[in-house]
Amino acid sequence: MRAVTVTEFGPPENLVITDVERPSPAAGEVLVKVAAAGVNRADLLQRQGNYPPPPGASDIIGMEVSGTVAELGTEVTGWEIGQQVCALIAGGGYAEYVAVAAELLLPVPDSVDLIEAAALPEVACTVLSNLKRTAHLQRGELLLLHGGASGIGTHGIQWAKALGATVAVTAGSAEKLGLCRDLGADITINYHDDDFVEVLKTHGGADVILDIIGAKYLSRNVSALAADGRLVVIGMQGGVKAELNLGALLSKRGTIHATALRGREQSDKAAIVADTIATTWPMIADGRVKPVVGATFSLDKAGEAHALLESGKVTGKVLLTV
Amino acid sequence: MRAVTVTEFGPPENLVITDVERPSPAAGEVLVKVAAAGVNRADLLQRQGNYPPPPGASDIIGMEVSGTVAELGTEVTGWEIGQQVCALIAGGGYAEYVAVAAELLLPVPDSVDLIEAAALPEVACTVLSNLKRTAHLQRGELLLLHGGASGIGTHGIQWAKALGATVAVTAGSAEKLGLCRDLGADITINYHDDDFVEVLKTHGGADVILDIIGAKYLSRNVSALAADGRLVVIGMQGGVKAELNLGALLSKRGTIHATALRGREQSDKAAIVADTIATTWPMIADGRVKPVVGATFSLDKAGEAHALLESGKVTGKVLLTV
Repeated sequence: MRAVTVTEFGPPENLVITDVERPSPAAGEVLVKVAAAGVNRADLLQRQGNYPPPPGASDIIGMEVSGTVAELGTEVTGWEIGQQVCALIAGGGYAEYVAVAAELLLPVPDSVDLIEAAALPEVACTVLSNLKRTAHLQRGELLLLHGGASGIGTHGIQWAKALGATVAVTAGSAEKLGLCRDLGADITINYHDDDFVEVLKTHGGADVILDIIGAKYLSRNVSALAADGRLVVIGMQGGVKAELNLGALLSKRGTIHATALRGREQSDKAAIVADTIATTWPMIADGRVKPVVGATFSLDKAGEAHALLESGKVTGKVLLTV
Repeated sequence: MRAVTVTEFGPPENLVITDVERPSPAAGEVLVKVAAAGVNRADLLQRQGNYPPPPGASDIIGMEVSGTVAELGTEVTGWEIGQQVCALIAGGGYAEYVAVAAELLLPVPDSVDLIEAAALPEVACTVLSNLKRTAHLQRGELLLLHGGASGIGTHGIQWAKALGATVAVTAGSAEKLGLCRDLGADITINYHDDDFVEVLKTHGGADVILDIIGAKYLSRNVSALAADGRLVVIGMQGGVKAELNLGALLSKRGTIHATALRGREQSDKAAIVADTIATTWPMIADGRVKPVVGATFSLDKAGEAHALLESGKVTGKVLLTV
């Protein structure tokens, strides 16, 4: 089968199409004929050699796909050949076929087309896992999303509005902030013009912050928290190490979580997938949450897709069609 | 009535006995004739002028007492004059009488004498609040308690063992570690001789750490956490600001909480008190958890009590009898 591989760790142009052996589904796995794969920031790090796949996972990049069930491994129940699915995977998405643990499959919601469905698994499971299961965001609370126009941001805005939260976002352009408002964001902050700490303070502080910046924002995120506020760091685009003022955190009874989906035990991922189907899929079915796709490339243009995501000049998700 | 006041912020000898007006119970409050008051580290900070009482609280130092109900304010039900009680208070404990919100009273357990009961409210509510309600410590998990021989440590060891957790402690002397073992600690670490990170690593890391050191231990506490581990910082004897490696925290999906009881809304404190009566009082009733009192002074020796606690040469709680 065709798959995208890395000639050597480095720039986007090192992604090339190669012929590789088609995987076979093991017991409990399903072989998915891939329609589209989502492109994630972690993929960029993996291409550069800075984010090796977990033990046992495919060397092929790609953490989410949509497609149709092509073959069932033994011990698989509840899925049928030809069924449209999307999936959260530890690797192997940039390819014609991928073998997926059945418990990490999600059905494609009726209102979503098969290609667009590749935009859902990572953002839906990430938002559900962090905002519901880790930070326990409640109806009526104030959520701050950094990178509001990103894949996670655009899904997070819609998800939190469907929950009944108030949503503040940061982004770097009027165009991106306009998209965030269209998706339901209540408070939009251009980080070039305004200090998000000052804006959040006028609203009593954020009950929950979902952060992709890391070190560069740590101190300001703590300052922007409300009493009993929870900061969830899921990305470190702004570095890894920063000074933490524990006194400032304690004065708010604040919490800092740092989490990722990828390294979790499969049983833990399966619980998140099940909760996502139970909680988020109904929001998608009735149109309150829609996939937001900013750009689509064919599989042989994976390098261009990476370069676009790296540039920061895209809103929503970037997809590769197979 | 007699009360301890501060001539001016400074050393222990600035604590003096003064005649002050006896408080009257407001609606919803009970007047308690104090038998004993617990001495806490926060009291030392308040004496030095570094920890002002919250708005509306008494200027008199003292965050917990035991005693008998002397008078009922209006709208108080469920408590009777003469009943033996202990209480979590925002201030006013170092005195002959204190007015206490009825919802912050706890009955004196049958197995505990009236003086010893003053050793319970702060440690019991702090341990319950942090280990159960904040960190969700589970049976079978590994808890690391810094300052195992302190008031909170000695209560925390017994409480966590009663829950069914494994308990590791740090302390600075063989005598203190012997006390911790007598109370049930499974793993005892003399921080002068051994690196607690290395010891915890041989046990797979700590699921929960209850920390009173703050900045000085932040980085090592993160290193000592297990996957999905929770660090709860409730004191900052080792400073306030430290570098945090978010990458190290994320690699464990770790959580850092910083909390305190004192600044909480009264309704929140009342919920903690109710949960403590429901959860911890049965452990005390059947002898699994006992108050640990290291030293008792009369009220006019409050300065000596402060000096002893400051010296670090005491185990368990320090009490003042009235």
